[in-house]
Amino acid sequence: MTRIAVCAPSTPITPEDAEAVRALASAQFPGAELVIHDQCFAVEGHFAGSDAARLDALLECANDPAFDAVWFARGGYGACRIAEDALAKMNHAAGQKTYLGYSDAGYLLGGLYRERIGRPVHGPMLADVRRSGGAEAVRCALGFLAGKGADLEPSLADERHPVVAFNLTTLAMLGGTRLMPGLANHVVMVEDVSEYLYAIDRLFFHATAHLGGIAGLRLGRVSDVPENDRPFGADAQEIARHWCRRHSIAFLGEADIGHDAANKLVPFG
Amino acid sequence: MTRIAVCAPSTPITPEDAEAVRALASAQFPGAELVIHDQCFAVEGHFAGSDAARLDALLECANDPAFDAVWFARGGYGACRIAEDALAKMNHAAGQKTYLGYSDAGYLLGGLYRERIGRPVHGPMLADVRRSGGAEAVRCALGFLAGKGADLEPSLADERHPVVAFNLTTLAMLGGTRLMPGLANHVVMVEDVSEYLYAIDRLFFHATAHLGGIAGLRLGRVSDVPENDRPFGADAQEIARHWCRRHSIAFLGEADIGHDAANKLVPFG
Repeated sequence: MTRIAVCAPSTPITPEDAEAVRALASAQFPGAELVIHDQCFAVEGHFAGSDAARLDALLECANDPAFDAVWFARGGYGACRIAEDALAKMNHAAGQKTYLGYSDAGYLLGGLYRERIGRPVHGPMLADVRRSGGAEAVRCALGFLAGKGADLEPSLADERHPVVAFNLTTLAMLGGTRLMPGLANHVVMVEDVSEYLYAIDRLFFHATAHLGGIAGLRLGRVSDVPENDRPFGADAQEIARHWCRRHSIAFLGEADIGHDAANKLVPFG
Repeated sequence: MTRIAVCAPSTPITPEDAEAVRALASAQFPGAELVIHDQCFAVEGHFAGSDAARLDALLECANDPAFDAVWFARGGYGACRIAEDALAKMNHAAGQKTYLGYSDAGYLLGGLYRERIGRPVHGPMLADVRRSGGAEAVRCALGFLAGKGADLEPSLADERHPVVAFNLTTLAMLGGTRLMPGLANHVVMVEDVSEYLYAIDRLFFHATAHLGGIAGLRLGRVSDVPENDRPFGADAQEIARHWCRRHSIAFLGEADIGHDAANKLVPFG
């Protein structure tokens, strides 16, 4: 039996989201037990409860030796407000777990990787069940956590460097903070959603300045780009190539990650 | 006679903007000569011409000893793409000038300040003439550049620390790059526009991590905040206070700067 704790360090899910995923899990992964913390449904302003409530729930999940994995329920925004405090209070049991999420959960994945706590993995979250094709994303996540195969990002098969994956905005905001892991010699995958291309360019200006010494960069999907009052003049891959060239970073091509149901798994390291 | 060169390191202005400001300048500041570079009207995708064209125009203005000041025409996005190259090619004449702008021009102000080139000043740009009350902003800028008084941000009168002012997004993106000035012992003023409050919070998370050792932070206007699907739960000043507290930065109150016609002047230093 694999015991999976779900908490929401960023924004809340609904009981309907939870019920849909519980049903899917019990039907298809009888060997996995899903324990969804009540904090996932709390609402305080933008967040799934106060900073203190989100921190406490995360620590309850991470520090309990009865759980094998912590699955982040949803992104949005908020994990950066509690990540440092959470890392500082994690115990030995926290170091034995897998942590799965993406998007805003990247602040935690980055911090965990920096502190060498457990196994951070970039991949689908519970709230992805809402997406078109979301059941498949949830199956991918649960299958991985339950040890029933892993739908890994395809380039990992031939990659000899350690790999990480981040939302580009999250990675840009991590740079220079106490959550930023050392990424020298790593392949770094980035994706983003709902950002203007000029903002993508700006994020690359910033993020690549913090990626000196990496083994290379792969670009995941940059989706739902809003239409601006004028065309930017370059697409996301041209932008990535431009900034990689400026910072002598090898551009390695695409990555099969993104804010969508096809978001493949990337275990860090 | 004060000779003011205008160029557009980010996005273009229209000939109508230029004409309106030329008329205002010749009527009210006969001692100032405004030389608006043709590059200000160039359009290439998002930008006022290619990176090369914007870089060349900026260097023509900065490196020409006949000019006393370089006035940035407009923000938007783009200065970070040429700032490092521009600084590397600036000559002795560039070091004798005042540079005036804000918003996206902050990449240049920051880099100039870091390299101790000339006198960077945060304040109105030519394109502000479009704003409601914009003629007054342009008068403030031209009056300052022409040596006819200076409408300084009021807290400067009693401030003994050196001061800088930035758009918060710009400052966040500067952190850790080769354009970021050392700001130890400085009072740092920030403002922003058209960002969700969760994004303001995220920018503060990041920016304050790069502001260790500053003398304090002042918050300018955070305007045109889009309405989100739910309230954030804190206003901009509460957000600023939260992150200042986290990083032991003194919160010094408001600053009279912002993306509006009342944006007061802040000479760096």
